[in-house]
Order: sequence, then C-alpha cells, then structure tokens
Amino acid sequence: MLFFRAWATGGRRAALDMDNKFIEEGLRGNAYSLARVITLLEDWDKRTHIIKEMNPYTGKAYVLGITGSPGVGKSTLISRLITYLRSLDLSVGLLCIDPTSPISGGSLLGDRLRMEEHSLDPGVFIRSLASRDQLGGVSPTTREAIKVLDASGKDIIIVESVGAGQAQVDLRKIVDTVALVSAPGLGDSIQMLKAGIMEIADILVLNMADREETDRTKRELETAASMFKGAWKPPVITTIATNNEGIPEFHQAIVDHREYLLKSGLFDQRRSERIIDHTMELVQELLKREVNQRLANQVELRRIVKNVEAGILDPYTAARDITEIVLRPHRED
Amino acid sequence: MLFFRAWATGGRRAALDMDNKFIEEGLRGNAYSLARVITLLEDWDKRTHIIKEMNPYTGKAYVLGITGSPGVGKSTLISRLITYLRSLDLSVGLLCIDPTSPISGGSLLGDRLRMEEHSLDPGVFIRSLASRDQLGGVSPTTREAIKVLDASGKDIIIVESVGAGQAQVDLRKIVDTVALVSAPGLGDSIQMLKAGIMEIADILVLNMADREETDRTKRELETAASMFKGAWKPPVITTIATNNEGIPEFHQAIVDHREYLLKSGLFDQRRSERIIDHTMELVQELLKREVNQRLANQVELRRIVKNVEAGILDPYTAARDITEIVLRPHRED
Repeated sequence: MLFFRAWATGGRRAALDMDNKFIEEGLRGNAYSLARVITLLEDWDKRTHIIKEMNPYTGKAYVLGITGSPGVGKSTLISRLITYLRSLDLSVGLLCIDPTSPISGGSLLGDRLRMEEHSLDPGVFIRSLASRDQLGGVSPTTREAIKVLDASGKDIIIVESVGAGQAQVDLRKIVDTVALVSAPGLGDSIQMLKAGIMEIADILVLNMADREETDRTKRELETAASMFKGAWKPPVITTIATNNEGIPEFHQAIVDHREYLLKSGLFDQRRSERIIDHTMELVQELLKREVNQRLANQVELRRIVKNVEAGILDPYTAARDITEIVLRPHRED
Repeated sequence: MLFFRAWATGGRRAALDMDNKFIEEGLRGNAYSLARVITLLEDWDKRTHIIKEMNPYTGKAYVLGITGSPGVGKSTLISRLITYLRSLDLSVGLLCIDPTSPISGGSLLGDRLRMEEHSLDPGVFIRSLASRDQLGGVSPTTREAIKVLDASGKDIIIVESVGAGQAQVDLRKIVDTVALVSAPGLGDSIQMLKAGIMEIADILVLNMADREETDRTKRELETAASMFKGAWKPPVITTIATNNEGIPEFHQAIVDHREYLLKSGLFDQRRSERIIDHTMELVQELLKREVNQRLANQVELRRIVKNVEAGILDPYTAARDITEIVLRPHRED
C-alpha cells in the first residue's frame, strides 16, 4: 500500500512536471505545447495550476470577438483579416467556438479548409473549442484559453462564435471589441436588431457586399447603429472577403474602437469588471462544489433534502437551512 | 428615532398582514388575490414567505408546457384547449412568458384578444410573466407562479413559452409534459430537430394542418419522433385550432403521456429531481448574496479583489481564498 502510494505520488509528480514543461514552452509560443495546455484546461485542477502560472504574463493581447449567423462568410473574413494582421507583423491566436449541433457540422469542415492557408505560419495559432451546449454557448474554458494565448505572446486574439442569442451576450463578457457580421438581404440583421443582439456589436460588418440588396441592408444597419445608446456609434463596414475587399477598413474600425476604449477609460474599466466577474463565477463554482460534497457526506444536509422531497419542507426554507449549515464551521459527521 | 422605528415596524406588519390576506384568498382561488400574490413574487423576501405558506397545498396540479416559434398559432391552440378542459370541468391556470423583445410585441397584443373568451370564466386564471431577458428565457419566478396556481386549486397549469433554444430547455425543468407546436412548411420543425430542441418534446403538435405541405411536414415529424431515444415516442398530433379540430386528440396525447409518466415511475422521479434542483439553485442564490454582502463589508475580501484587479493575484487563487474566508465562521471587521 505504501509502495503503491509512493508510486502514485511519483506518477502525479511526473504528470505535473510534464504539464509545467508544456506551460513553459507555451509561454515561449510553442504551438504544440499551447495546444496541449488548452486541452489540459478541461480539468479543473490543471486549469487552476495553468492560470496561476500564466496569469502574470497576461493583459497585453487585444481580444476581438467575431460573431454572426452561419452562412455570412465569417471564416473567409477572419482568414483574410489574419493575413492582413500578419502583414502588419502582428501575431494572431484564433479560438473557434464549435457548436456540437449538426447544423453547422458541414460548414465547420469547410472552415478548417479555408484556414489551411495559415497552417504553416508560426505567427498564427488556431484552435477549436467545443461549446458548452448544442445551442452554441461560450465554452467555460474560452476565457482561460484567451489567457493562455495572451500569455504566449499573441498580439491579437480572435474569438469566433456562431450560435444565436445567449452566445453573443456571453461573447461580450470576454472580448474587448465585438464585430457582428451579416450579409445583404438575409434579413437576419433586422432579426438580430429586434432581438437586442445587435446592441452587443461595436462594429457592424456587411460581408458579401457584391450581392443584391447591399445598399438597402447597409442603410438599415446604419439607421440601427445611429440609434445605439452610448458615445460609440458602430461603423458599418462593407467587405467582400472572397475578393479581399474591405479588410483594411475592417482593421481600421477595430483600431478606432480600441482607441475609443482607451481614451474613454472604458478599456481599463471593462477589463477590471471582467476579471472580477470571472473571479466571482469561480467563487460560485467552488461554493457549488463544496455544497455538493457536503450533501454527499453530511447526514444533516441529506435529511433536509429528504424533507423537501417529501413536501414537509419548502425549497426556500430548505435552501436557507442548507446555506446556514454550509456557512457554519465545517465538522465531519 | 424610537418612534420612527416603531412606526416602520408597524408599517411592515400591516404590509405582511395584507400579503397574508392575499395568500389566504389566493388559496381559495380568488383571481384578484392570485394576481397580487404573483406580483409579490418579484420580491425575494415576500417570495420566500409566500412559498413557505403555500407549499403544503402544492403537488396536485398537472403542469403542461407549450412552446414553438412565433406564428404557429400557439395562442389559438391554447385557447381551444382551455375551452376543452373547461368542458371536462377542469380548472386551468395559464402563465404566458412574454419576451420583452419587440419581435413579438404585436402578436402578444393579438394573443390577449384571443384569450378574451375566457376572461369572465372564474375557472380560468391567465397571467403574463416578463421573461428574464430579451431572448425569451424562463422568468425566475415562473416556478413559483406555478406553485401559487397549484396551491390555489387549479387542476391544469399551462406554461406558454416563445423564444428559442435555452427557453425550451428551461421549460423542460419546470413542467411535466412539453408540447412543441409547429406549422406545415415553415421548416422550423427541422431546424428545431437539428438544434436538439425537439428532443425536449413529449408531444409534437402540427397546427394549421389545412395548409399545403401538411403531409410532408407530418411525415418528417413522425420520422424524427421515431428516432427519439427512450421508451416514450412523441405522437404527432395534427390540429386546425382556428376550426377547433384535433383538440380532443391533443388532450388525449397529454393524458397518455401523463399515464406513461405515472406508470413508469418517471413522474415521481422527475418531480423529486425538480424540487431538489430548485432548492440547489436557491442555495446558490443565497450563497451569492452572502458573498456580495461580505465583499461590501469585509476589508479582507476587498483586498483580494483589489489584488486580482491589479494582476497581482490570479482569479483562481483569489476565488479559492474568497471561498475559504466565506466558509469560515463569520466575524465582523
């Protein structure tokens, strides 16, 4: 038994040494190690260790979110933007949030192919993250993957998200600038506006701007943007990504928005809010784990749950009792 | 000061007496009092009090969720179903979850008009609840409103939800049977199937079944339903709500699903899971409030947050430190 324990501890130590090697090499920008580190983020304990080690090197990268309905040409646009950023000698990290839904299964394969052109460039790191659910929410480790790429020295980190609704709202919480991509005549720009999704956008990109109805859609977007509350009115940028048109203008809009955030003080304010939000979500998660563990071990708590199930106790009284017990000094039964 | 405090306490006591009067009369089914009680649910303390008082009278009503895209005729269908249930001498509570989004603003007004026919029937109670967000999520007080109507003696409680995605998933957690309504040729049934939304359905209703493409859409739905995992295969019910056709069949499907749940033991299992889920969510909410309160008052916690903001501490270490302090016996600084 003692031998086994020593062996197991030795095994854990070896695993930790290996993790640390990946972290070290990841900090120097090694793509293979970065990919490994991002995979390790799935495990709570490893994630805690990785972020602790890498956090001091974060805060330098600019984080851009790109979202929009499927079929508006996001991947081609992103690929062209990456080429442009590389021509300015900026290094790029791209995180694609893949919904597990079969809807976009086909197009995702195509996306990978369109990104092929960057696969041999050491200044570009591309990684897909499975989304939390079929509905395209932001993966719980997206925030951490951004930190890892930031610490690795990437200048710009692009987070690509599909999905509708909640996914876009979540995106807002983790990036500096959100670009919302639409296409002429799809009508989805108006849908998004009505659903309040457009209000998360800092830049409105109208891609496929050689299609019919470009002018009308552009006017609609401009009218919508002019009605936005706040000092920043999102510019409407027309692009034809397949022809490489409008990319410098798109980049300029990102630079302008960054300037605006910096000058207005919003940049620091938002980053500080974001880091506090993140910490508070982690506190919630740790408290949840603590409660679940105690529920499994404390007879007193199990009795309360049984009484709720039996209808003897109402959920509110039960929740108050459980909370009081959890907040009391811990004692094993 | 003393005088003021006594006066304030007196005011609170009078308010509580009034709340208790509404609760008492609500338990006897008085519609005006029920409406007041549901409004009072918005306040956390009042909600705690109301659920504690009404919980012993709950558990008798059957809860039906009806969902589907806008424009498939949900309101007319529900209105006809209510008429049918009334003919069986069953009392009905209807909770409509209103997204605050302007998208359905127009149709909601129409819905209210279509429900007019039940407005003089004391056996029908109708109430709209604002949804949590613009994206049509389930209101945090929907669960409690169901409990209130249940305690008031309603036999069937219908929860109508629009919105897409998360809203439907949430609906699953609070009702016994979910009916998903679609219309021929809209193509949204296939979209919902692909997005995994259809899997939350126990009954598939194809309304407007006098339209073209009814047969094809019905076959698609039947094929989809036959592939569902689990012992229950959702029946596909065709209705023409405007002509009052298919309503008894829809009702029979609800009865069949209820029988299935009861016989398989799933009914009790799900209700007990639901009540535990609810309790655990309330525990999370109470712990969150506790953390926020301590953050405002405890110097020690404020210092940790400052260090995270300054980048001296990483969010994971900070979260662990905060959690440990919160779980320690409380002490005022």
